[in-house]
Amino acid sequence: MAAPIRVVACEVKDIRFPTSLEKDGSDAMNKAPDYSSPYVILKTDSQLEGHGITFTVGKGNEIVCHAIKVLSKMVVGVELSTIYNDFGTFWRSLTSEDQMRWLGPEKGVMHLAVAAIINALWDLWAKVERKPLWKLLADMEPEKLVSTIDFRYISDALTKEEALSILKKQQSGKKDREKHIKEIGYPSYTTSVGWLGYDDVKLRRLCKEALSQGFTRFKAKVGADLEDDKRRLGIIREEVGKDKILLVDANQRWEVQEAIEWMKELAQFDLTWIEEPTSPDDILGHAKIAKELNPLGIGVATGEQCQNRIVFKQFLQADALQFCQIDSCRLGGVNENLAVILMACKFGVPICPHGGGVGLCELIQHLSIFDYIAVSGTLEKRVVEYVDHLHEHFLTPTVINNGSYIPPQAPGYSITMKESTIKSNEYPNGSVWQKLIKDGVYTV
Amino acid sequence: MAAPIRVVACEVKDIRFPTSLEKDGSDAMNKAPDYSSPYVILKTDSQLEGHGITFTVGKGNEIVCHAIKVLSKMVVGVELSTIYNDFGTFWRSLTSEDQMRWLGPEKGVMHLAVAAIINALWDLWAKVERKPLWKLLADMEPEKLVSTIDFRYISDALTKEEALSILKKQQSGKKDREKHIKEIGYPSYTTSVGWLGYDDVKLRRLCKEALSQGFTRFKAKVGADLEDDKRRLGIIREEVGKDKILLVDANQRWEVQEAIEWMKELAQFDLTWIEEPTSPDDILGHAKIAKELNPLGIGVATGEQCQNRIVFKQFLQADALQFCQIDSCRLGGVNENLAVILMACKFGVPICPHGGGVGLCELIQHLSIFDYIAVSGTLEKRVVEYVDHLHEHFLTPTVINNGSYIPPQAPGYSITMKESTIKSNEYPNGSVWQKLIKDGVYTV
Repeated sequence: MAAPIRVVACEVKDIRFPTSLEKDGSDAMNKAPDYSSPYVILKTDSQLEGHGITFTVGKGNEIVCHAIKVLSKMVVGVELSTIYNDFGTFWRSLTSEDQMRWLGPEKGVMHLAVAAIINALWDLWAKVERKPLWKLLADMEPEKLVSTIDFRYISDALTKEEALSILKKQQSGKKDREKHIKEIGYPSYTTSVGWLGYDDVKLRRLCKEALSQGFTRFKAKVGADLEDDKRRLGIIREEVGKDKILLVDANQRWEVQEAIEWMKELAQFDLTWIEEPTSPDDILGHAKIAKELNPLGIGVATGEQCQNRIVFKQFLQADALQFCQIDSCRLGGVNENLAVILMACKFGVPICPHGGGVGLCELIQHLSIFDYIAVSGTLEKRVVEYVDHLHEHFLTPTVINNGSYIPPQAPGYSITMKESTIKSNEYPNGSVWQKLIKDGVYTV
Repeated sequence: MAAPIRVVACEVKDIRFPTSLEKDGSDAMNKAPDYSSPYVILKTDSQLEGHGITFTVGKGNEIVCHAIKVLSKMVVGVELSTIYNDFGTFWRSLTSEDQMRWLGPEKGVMHLAVAAIINALWDLWAKVERKPLWKLLADMEPEKLVSTIDFRYISDALTKEEALSILKKQQSGKKDREKHIKEIGYPSYTTSVGWLGYDDVKLRRLCKEALSQGFTRFKAKVGADLEDDKRRLGIIREEVGKDKILLVDANQRWEVQEAIEWMKELAQFDLTWIEEPTSPDDILGHAKIAKELNPLGIGVATGEQCQNRIVFKQFLQADALQFCQIDSCRLGGVNENLAVILMACKFGVPICPHGGGVGLCELIQHLSIFDYIAVSGTLEKRVVEYVDHLHEHFLTPTVINNGSYIPPQAPGYSITMKESTIKSNEYPNGSVWQKLIKDGVYTV
């Protein structure tokens, strides 16, 4: 990466989609989300641009945009080699700036903002190298890859040396695995069948559709009403059969004991995991739930609101999760996701990233494909979430074939939105929003 | 509280103090803080106003102000009885709004913003009742007090019924304890002697001054350089003598194992606690440190960056802290502090609030005095931080006598700033900042 390219500007767009009108994405905790994205465009003094996003569910998207603008001062004017030659240090400069660190540290609004900028920098790096992100990562020398990670506060669980050793061990079979994953695609599950707001007719129709598309793993939302959960899980099992994998997601609805009792009632539907049974901050609570549900064959999955590598570290140390749901936008971008992927590998816990929202599926496929080729070397118990929403807004949307993600080939991190979408969905002045405001459906 | 008063407006001011010029507040992690406050004024249709703050260390103060403005839409127009008759529910409506919850949940920028609004509402309530906040709380019926708390995600550690029972048990001796605390004041310790940026001459002078003011408990910053720590702690011990209490604070500087090793080197100075040895998110790390340092008679203190009651719950469950440093502005205001005070009481851990910054001492004295009168009923091992900075900017600043906080008597939460300060220190247009900008000392 010798080309002397410099970041010269950082544009931030407040992009929103009125998904709440359709009840797409409704669950026990998020009743009416408007999937939204603070969208970053890093302009350089070359032809190349880095595009990056983070994700919110509507209100407050502008607060994250504001935070990105403040942080962007630390990126604009910087030469790319300064960043990529010691990316771990640059990452820490963004997350631990002397005064702004107080606003987190490394969590919430500030960390979402960091994610958007960092994701854009990786998109740019992958474009410079003319590779899709997963291949940039998979081809990278172990020493180089490890240099992008900030090991602060995780060295008691994973040292730099241990991370190196994991990567070096997998060097030999990389070419074979790359070939293999291009042939078969990365296994996914679909969440599109099971949102709370859908009626039974729609539920049956969506199950049939998903089956016909080749999906063999299905996720349903639970937690609002026990009897309703039983009825809906019964319908899904009827439609998909006994041999398919069924996952459930409570979106943090329960207290610890309540989670255990509720899930004992639902165990009859042969569930592989319960996702987000309680507060994402409650490591010890999840550990207790995991211990109680283990005899029923149900694992705990969580991570989409797990704030940083330090909390993931403890989830792993406490046996509090059996499926590690990294999020490309909740963690501080690719660098911190690499830290968690390597920690999870050491602890023998499979990476099963959080998808959905807008653009999350486009991003996470890269991370899981990299995990397979260069870190874990296996697909066992691993699966990437797929939600069939909003892909049409991206230049290179995900490609799903027979229930699997086909590895993207275009250079970058697959997150560039169509210009027409950026124009129409910018809030509140884009045409989509202006129409809704004019029609009285929304008020700003 | 029958008076039909309504909130009619919420003003938000970005107030900052250029403390970095003096190195006040310098520590191993925060090298040059500019103590700052997003400042809230809730106007009502009566004469009364509620004032509230949260706290940052400079940059990004405007992001929190932005978040407050977004949240304020949920307060303006609301009648006070609606809030105070079911404050727990109102609190949850702010922290768990359907779409904005995604930005935390209950942490970072959004939670700091919640704190400012909630603190202003308690200031207003205390003014309506013509009582200082501590007395409003101490006089409150247990059922009423418990109704202000959101028990979501902590019921496995403290149920509503247990909280009630703690409060009811202490009803009998309240009058005596109120009398007692008015006579002797609430014990404090001083942090003013031990910031990293001070030279030895200043250090000795400050120790002598603090002793002459009656302080018997002293805190020093550590963690940047082991030999320098030894030298400075040696000087402090020389100055204050062997019988005084000495505390140290690493401000999150260390890895887990590093903290243990470093503190073993410092144990010779007879230290009561090590504060913030590592990441505030690392519950299991703190538990390990606490276990290793216990034989040396050193306890772990933490909390000023503990994001919410759920994380405090786990610190208590895991024996990860021996001194519980609640923060009036990091947690979501008074309501969540009450939850933590009651949990700590159940677990037998003393409350020792975090002071300093700007206005924190003014606020926390109320919480500790309430704890003594109505919850724990004891002063044993309990101490409130005192830092001698920026008190002159408040209408009713803290009063320290012989190293103890004298209970404030003015109605409210003691946080109203002088109008002249609000004018001069508003960023960036106040006269203090305009001069610094003109002189080229600061750039916006």
